[in-house]
Amino acid sequence: MHELPATARALDARIREDIPMARAIDLHIEACDGDTLSMTAPLAPNVNDKGCAFGGSLASLMTVAGWALVVLALEARGLACDVFVARSEIAYRAPVWQDFRAVATLADEAGWDPFFARLGQRGKAHIDLRCQATECGDEHSCATLAATFVAKHRRDAAQ
Amino acid sequence: MHELPATARALDARIREDIPMARAIDLHIEACDGDTLSMTAPLAPNVNDKGCAFGGSLASLMTVAGWALVVLALEARGLACDVFVARSEIAYRAPVWQDFRAVATLADEAGWDPFFARLGQRGKAHIDLRCQATECGDEHSCATLAATFVAKHRRDAAQ
Repeated sequence: MHELPATARALDARIREDIPMARAIDLHIEACDGDTLSMTAPLAPNVNDKGCAFGGSLASLMTVAGWALVVLALEARGLACDVFVARSEIAYRAPVWQDFRAVATLADEAGWDPFFARLGQRGKAHIDLRCQATECGDEHSCATLAATFVAKHRRDAAQ
Repeated sequence: MHELPATARALDARIREDIPMARAIDLHIEACDGDTLSMTAPLAPNVNDKGCAFGGSLASLMTVAGWALVVLALEARGLACDVFVARSEIAYRAPVWQDFRAVATLADEAGWDPFFARLGQRGKAHIDLRCQATECGDEHSCATLAATFVAKHRRDAAQ
Protein backbone atom coordinates (compact mmCIF):
# COMPACT_ATOMS: atom_id res chain seq x y z
CA MET A 1 0.00 0.00 0.00
CA HIS A 2 1.31 3.41 -0.91
CA GLU A 3 1.86 5.95 1.81
CA LEU A 4 -0.13 9.11 1.15
CA PRO A 5 2.17 12.14 0.61
CA ALA A 6 2.32 14.50 3.60
CA THR A 7 0.70 17.33 1.61
CA ALA A 8 -2.26 15.08 0.77
CA ARG A 9 -2.58 13.92 4.38
CA ALA A 10 -2.60 17.55 5.50
CA LEU A 11 -5.20 18.49 2.88
CA ASP A 12 -7.36 15.53 3.89
CA ALA A 13 -7.32 16.73 7.51
CA ARG A 14 -8.02 20.34 6.45
CA ILE A 15 -10.96 19.37 4.23
CA ARG A 16 -12.58 17.46 7.07
CA GLU A 17 -11.87 20.25 9.55
CA ASP A 18 -13.10 23.12 7.34
CA ILE A 19 -16.05 21.52 5.55
CA PRO A 20 -18.76 19.99 7.78
CA MET A 21 -20.27 18.20 4.77
CA ALA A 22 -16.95 16.47 4.09
CA ARG A 23 -17.16 15.04 7.60
CA ALA A 24 -20.81 14.07 7.05
CA ILE A 25 -19.89 12.27 3.80
CA ASP A 26 -16.89 10.83 5.70
CA LEU A 27 -14.65 11.25 2.66
CA HIS A 28 -10.92 10.57 2.61
CA ILE A 29 -8.15 11.06 0.10
CA GLU A 30 -7.00 7.55 -0.74
CA ALA A 31 -4.17 8.14 -3.20
CA CYS A 32 -2.70 10.82 -5.42
CA ASP A 33 0.25 11.17 -7.75
CA GLY A 34 -0.01 14.69 -9.15
CA ASP A 35 -2.10 13.73 -12.17
CA THR A 36 -4.71 11.56 -10.48
CA LEU A 37 -6.42 11.70 -7.11
CA SER A 38 -8.76 9.13 -5.62
CA MET A 39 -11.14 9.68 -2.75
CA THR A 40 -13.41 7.22 -0.97
CA ALA A 41 -16.56 7.40 1.13
CA PRO A 42 -18.55 4.76 3.00
CA LEU A 43 -22.10 4.00 1.85
CA ALA A 44 -23.79 4.15 5.29
CA PRO A 45 -23.86 7.95 5.85
CA ASN A 46 -24.55 8.50 2.14
CA VAL A 47 -27.61 6.34 1.46
CA ASN A 48 -30.75 7.68 -0.18
CA ASP A 49 -34.37 6.61 0.21
CA LYS A 50 -33.67 3.52 -1.94
CA GLY A 51 -30.68 2.37 0.13
CA CYS A 52 -28.09 3.15 -2.54
CA ALA A 53 -25.79 6.19 -2.69
CA PHE A 54 -27.43 9.61 -2.60
CA GLY A 55 -26.80 11.54 -5.84
CA GLY A 56 -25.67 14.58 -3.87
CA SER A 57 -22.99 12.50 -2.16
CA LEU A 58 -21.70 11.14 -5.47
CA ALA A 59 -21.67 14.67 -6.91
CA SER A 60 -19.89 15.98 -3.81
CA LEU A 61 -17.24 13.25 -3.71
CA MET A 62 -16.43 13.65 -7.41
CA THR A 63 -16.32 17.45 -7.11
CA VAL A 64 -14.10 17.42 -4.02
CA ALA A 65 -11.76 14.88 -5.61
CA GLY A 66 -11.29 17.22 -8.59
CA TRP A 67 -10.92 20.24 -6.33
CA ALA A 68 -8.30 18.45 -4.20
CA LEU A 69 -6.31 17.44 -7.30
CA VAL A 70 -6.06 21.11 -8.32
CA VAL A 71 -5.24 22.27 -4.78
CA LEU A 72 -2.39 19.76 -4.46
CA ALA A 73 -1.02 20.67 -7.91
CA LEU A 74 -0.90 24.33 -6.80
CA GLU A 75 0.66 23.49 -3.45
CA ALA A 76 3.32 21.38 -5.14
CA ARG A 77 4.37 24.54 -6.98
CA GLY A 78 4.20 26.72 -3.84
CA LEU A 79 1.20 28.69 -5.10
CA ALA A 80 -1.38 30.12 -2.67
CA CYS A 81 -4.70 30.17 -4.51
CA ASP A 82 -8.39 29.84 -3.83
CA VAL A 83 -9.86 27.07 -5.95
CA PHE A 84 -13.53 26.74 -6.77
CA VAL A 85 -15.72 24.76 -9.13
CA ALA A 86 -17.26 26.85 -11.92
CA ARG A 87 -19.38 24.31 -13.75
CA SER A 88 -19.96 20.58 -13.90
CA GLU A 89 -21.81 17.95 -15.86
CA ILE A 90 -22.70 14.71 -14.15
CA ALA A 91 -24.01 11.49 -15.64
CA TYR A 92 -25.49 9.05 -13.13
CA ARG A 93 -25.11 5.69 -14.87
CA ALA A 94 -25.84 3.02 -12.28
CA PRO A 95 -26.85 2.86 -8.62
CA VAL A 96 -24.05 2.48 -6.07
CA TRP A 97 -24.70 -0.18 -3.44
CA GLN A 98 -21.28 -0.24 -1.75
CA ASP A 99 -18.69 2.10 -0.34
CA PHE A 100 -17.54 4.16 -3.27
CA ARG A 101 -14.55 5.81 -4.85
CA ALA A 102 -14.08 8.87 -7.07
CA VAL A 103 -10.98 9.17 -9.25
CA ALA A 104 -10.20 12.60 -10.67
CA THR A 105 -7.80 13.33 -13.49
CA LEU A 106 -7.20 15.96 -16.17
CA ALA A 107 -9.67 16.13 -19.03
CA ASP A 108 -8.24 14.82 -22.32
CA GLU A 109 -7.63 18.28 -23.77
CA ALA A 110 -6.35 19.85 -20.53
CA GLY A 111 -2.77 20.27 -19.34
CA TRP A 112 -1.08 21.63 -16.25
CA ASP A 113 1.48 23.65 -18.24
CA PRO A 114 -0.98 26.03 -19.97
CA PHE A 115 -2.96 26.28 -16.73
CA PHE A 116 0.08 27.39 -14.71
CA ALA A 117 1.29 29.67 -17.49
CA ARG A 118 -2.03 31.47 -17.58
CA LEU A 119 -2.20 31.61 -13.79
CA GLY A 120 1.23 33.24 -13.72
CA GLN A 121 0.22 35.79 -16.37
CA ARG A 122 -3.25 36.68 -15.14
CA GLY A 123 -3.46 35.59 -11.50
CA LYS A 124 -6.43 33.45 -12.47
CA ALA A 125 -6.88 30.37 -14.66
CA HIS A 126 -9.27 27.52 -15.24
CA ILE A 127 -8.71 23.84 -15.87
CA ASP A 128 -11.00 21.03 -16.98
CA LEU A 129 -11.03 17.77 -15.07
CA ARG A 130 -12.98 14.56 -15.31
CA CYS A 131 -13.88 12.22 -12.54
CA GLN A 132 -15.36 8.77 -12.34
CA ALA A 133 -17.19 7.13 -9.46
CA THR A 134 -17.17 3.38 -8.93
CA GLU A 135 -18.11 1.02 -6.16
CA CYS A 136 -15.06 0.06 -4.12
CA GLY A 137 -13.80 -3.27 -5.40
CA ASP A 138 -15.39 -2.79 -8.82
CA GLU A 139 -14.22 -0.92 -11.91
CA HIS A 140 -17.65 -0.45 -13.47
CA SER A 141 -18.37 3.26 -13.87
CA CYS A 142 -21.42 4.32 -11.83
CA ALA A 143 -21.19 8.09 -12.39
CA THR A 144 -18.97 10.52 -14.26
CA LEU A 145 -18.29 14.19 -13.80
CA ALA A 146 -16.74 16.71 -16.16
CA ALA A 147 -15.98 19.97 -14.42
CA THR A 148 -14.15 23.26 -14.76
CA PHE A 149 -12.21 24.54 -11.76
CA VAL A 150 -10.90 28.07 -11.34
CA ALA A 151 -7.83 29.02 -9.34
CA LYS A 152 -7.18 32.60 -8.23
CA HIS A 153 -4.15 33.96 -6.46
CA ARG A 154 -5.01 34.87 -2.89
CA ARG A 155 -4.75 38.53 -2.03
CA ASP A 156 -2.57 37.54 0.89
CA ALA A 157 -0.43 35.31 -1.32
CA ALA A 158 2.65 37.48 -0.73
CA GLN A 159 2.58 36.67 2.98
CA MET B 1 -47.42 32.58 4.84
CA HIS B 2 -48.75 29.61 2.93
CA GLU B 3 -49.32 26.37 4.75
CA LEU B 4 -47.29 23.58 3.14
CA PRO B 5 -49.58 20.86 1.68
CA ALA B 6 -49.76 17.69 3.80
CA THR B 7 -48.12 15.61 1.05
CA ALA B 8 -45.16 18.01 0.97
CA ARG B 9 -44.88 18.00 4.78
CA ALA B 10 -44.87 14.21 4.73
CA LEU B 11 -42.24 14.11 1.97
CA ASP B 12 -40.09 16.61 3.86
CA ALA B 13 -40.16 14.36 6.95
CA ARG B 14 -39.46 11.26 4.83
CA ILE B 15 -36.49 12.84 3.06
CA ARG B 16 -34.92 13.79 6.38
CA GLU B 17 -35.64 10.38 7.87
CA ASP B 18 -34.38 8.32 4.90
CA ILE B 19 -31.40 10.38 3.73
CA PRO B 20 -28.71 11.15 6.34
CA MET B 21 -27.17 13.77 4.04
CA ALA B 22 -30.50 15.63 3.88
CA ARG B 23 -30.32 15.92 7.67
CA ALA B 24 -26.67 17.01 7.48
CA ILE B 25 -27.55 19.71 4.93
CA ASP B 26 -30.59 20.51 7.15
CA LEU B 27 -32.78 21.05 4.11
CA HIS B 28 -36.51 21.71 4.20
CA ILE B 29 -39.25 22.02 1.63
CA GLU B 30 -40.40 25.62 1.90
CA ALA B 31 -43.21 25.83 -0.65
CA CYS B 32 -44.66 23.95 -3.60
CA ASP B 33 -47.56 24.36 -5.95
CA GLY B 34 -47.29 21.42 -8.37
CA ASP B 35 -45.18 23.27 -10.93
CA THR B 36 -42.58 24.81 -8.62
CA LEU B 37 -40.91 23.64 -5.44
CA SER B 38 -38.59 25.62 -3.21
CA MET B 39 -36.24 24.20 -0.62
CA THR B 40 -34.00 25.99 1.86
CA ALA B 41 -30.87 25.17 3.85
CA PRO B 42 -28.90 27.12 6.45
CA LEU B 43 -25.35 28.19 5.63
CA ALA B 44 -23.70 26.98 8.87
CA PRO B 45 -23.62 23.21 8.24
CA ASN B 46 -22.89 23.81 4.56
CA VAL B 47 -19.84 26.06 4.60
CA ASN B 48 -16.66 25.29 2.67
CA ASP B 49 -13.05 26.19 3.41
CA LYS B 50 -13.73 29.79 2.30
CA GLY B 51 -16.74 30.27 4.58
CA CYS B 52 -19.31 30.32 1.76
CA ALA B 53 -21.59 27.49 0.68
CA PHE B 54 -19.95 24.19 -0.27
CA GLY B 55 -20.54 23.36 -3.94
CA GLY B 56 -21.69 19.87 -3.03
CA SER B 57 -24.39 21.31 -0.78
CA LEU B 58 -25.65 23.63 -3.54
CA ALA B 59 -25.66 20.72 -5.99
CA SER B 60 -27.45 18.51 -3.47
CA LEU B 61 -30.12 21.08 -2.56
CA MET B 62 -30.91 21.84 -6.21
CA THR B 63 -31.00 18.13 -7.10
CA VAL B 64 -33.25 17.20 -4.16
CA ALA B 65 -35.58 20.12 -4.94
CA GLY B 66 -36.03 18.83 -8.48
CA TRP B 67 -36.41 15.26 -7.27
CA ALA B 68 -39.05 16.32 -4.73
CA LEU B 69 -41.01 18.23 -7.39
CA VAL B 70 -41.24 15.05 -9.49
CA VAL B 71 -42.10 12.86 -6.48
CA LEU B 72 -44.95 15.17 -5.44
CA ALA B 73 -46.27 15.36 -9.01
CA LEU B 74 -46.41 11.55 -9.08
CA GLU B 75 -48.02 11.31 -5.65
CA ALA B 76 -50.66 13.87 -6.65
CA ARG B 77 -51.69 11.40 -9.38
CA GLY B 78 -51.57 8.39 -7.06
CA LEU B 79 -48.55 6.87 -8.82
CA ALA B 80 -45.99 4.76 -6.91
CA CYS B 81 -42.66 5.27 -8.64
CA ASP B 82 -38.98 5.36 -7.86
CA VAL B 83 -37.47 8.64 -9.01
CA PHE B 84 -33.79 9.20 -9.65
CA VAL B 85 -31.57 11.79 -11.26
CA ALA B 86 -29.99 10.65 -14.53
CA ARG B 87 -27.85 13.65 -15.49
CA SER B 88 -27.29 17.24 -14.47
CA GLU B 89 -25.41 20.34 -15.52
CA ILE B 90 -24.55 22.89 -12.88
CA ALA B 91 -23.22 26.41 -13.29
CA TYR B 92 -21.78 27.96 -10.14
CA ARG B 93 -22.13 31.69 -10.77
CA ALA B 94 -21.44 33.44 -7.47
CA PRO B 95 -20.47 32.47 -3.93
CA VAL B 96 -23.31 32.05 -1.41
CA TRP B 97 -22.70 33.80 1.91
CA GLN B 98 -26.13 33.33 3.50
CA ASP B 99 -28.73 30.67 4.09
CA PHE B 100 -29.83 29.61 0.65
CA ARG B 101 -32.81 28.52 -1.39
CA ALA B 102 -33.26 26.30 -4.45
CA VAL B 103 -36.32 26.69 -6.64
CA ALA B 104 -37.09 23.86 -9.07
CA THR B 105 -39.46 24.04 -11.99
CA LEU B 106 -40.02 22.36 -15.35
CA ALA B 107 -37.52 23.08 -18.12
CA ASP B 108 -38.91 25.32 -20.85
CA GLU B 109 -39.51 22.50 -23.30
CA ALA B 110 -40.81 20.00 -20.71
CA GLY B 111 -44.42 19.26 -19.76
CA TRP B 112 -46.12 17.00 -17.25
CA ASP B 113 -48.67 15.70 -19.78
CA PRO B 114 -46.19 13.97 -22.14
CA PHE B 115 -44.25 12.71 -19.10
CA PHE B 116 -47.30 11.06 -17.57
CA ALA B 117 -48.50 9.75 -20.93
CA ARG B 118 -45.16 8.04 -21.51
CA LEU B 119 -45.03 6.74 -17.96
CA GLY B 120 -48.47 5.20 -18.44
CA GLN B 121 -47.44 3.58 -21.72
CA ARG B 122 -43.99 2.34 -20.78
CA GLY B 123 -43.82 2.26 -16.99
CA LYS B 124 -40.83 4.59 -17.21
CA ALA B 125 -40.35 8.18 -18.36
CA HIS B 126 -37.94 11.07 -18.00
CA ILE B 127 -38.50 14.75 -17.48
CA ASP B 128 -36.20 17.76 -17.63
CA LEU B 129 -36.20 20.29 -14.82
CA ARG B 130 -34.24 23.40 -14.05
CA CYS B 131 -33.39 24.79 -10.68
CA GLN B 132 -31.92 28.01 -9.42
CA ALA B 133 -30.13 28.69 -6.15
CA THR B 134 -30.16 32.09 -4.49
CA GLU B 135 -29.23 33.48 -1.12
CA CYS B 136 -32.33 33.77 1.08
CA GLY B 137 -33.58 37.36 0.86
CA ASP B 138 -31.94 37.93 -2.52
CA GLU B 139 -33.08 37.10 -6.04
CA HIS B 140 -29.63 37.14 -7.64
CA SER B 141 -28.90 33.71 -9.14
CA CYS B 142 -25.86 32.06 -7.50
CA ALA B 143 -26.09 28.67 -9.19
CA THR B 144 -28.28 26.93 -11.73
CA LEU B 145 -28.95 23.30 -12.44
CA ALA B 146 -30.48 21.61 -15.47
CA ALA B 147 -31.26 17.97 -14.82
CA THR B 148 -33.08 14.96 -16.17
CA PHE B 149 -35.05 12.82 -13.74
CA VAL B 150 -36.37 9.34 -14.44
CA ALA B 151 -39.47 7.83 -12.86
CA LYS B 152 -40.13 4.07 -12.92
CA HIS B 153 -43.20 2.28 -11.67
CA ARG B 154 -42.40 0.29 -8.56
CA ARG B 155 -42.74 -3.47 -8.86
CA ASP B 156 -44.98 -3.40 -5.81
CA ALA B 157 -47.07 -0.55 -7.26
CA ALA B 158 -50.20 -2.72 -7.41
CA GLN B 159 -50.18 -3.11 -3.64
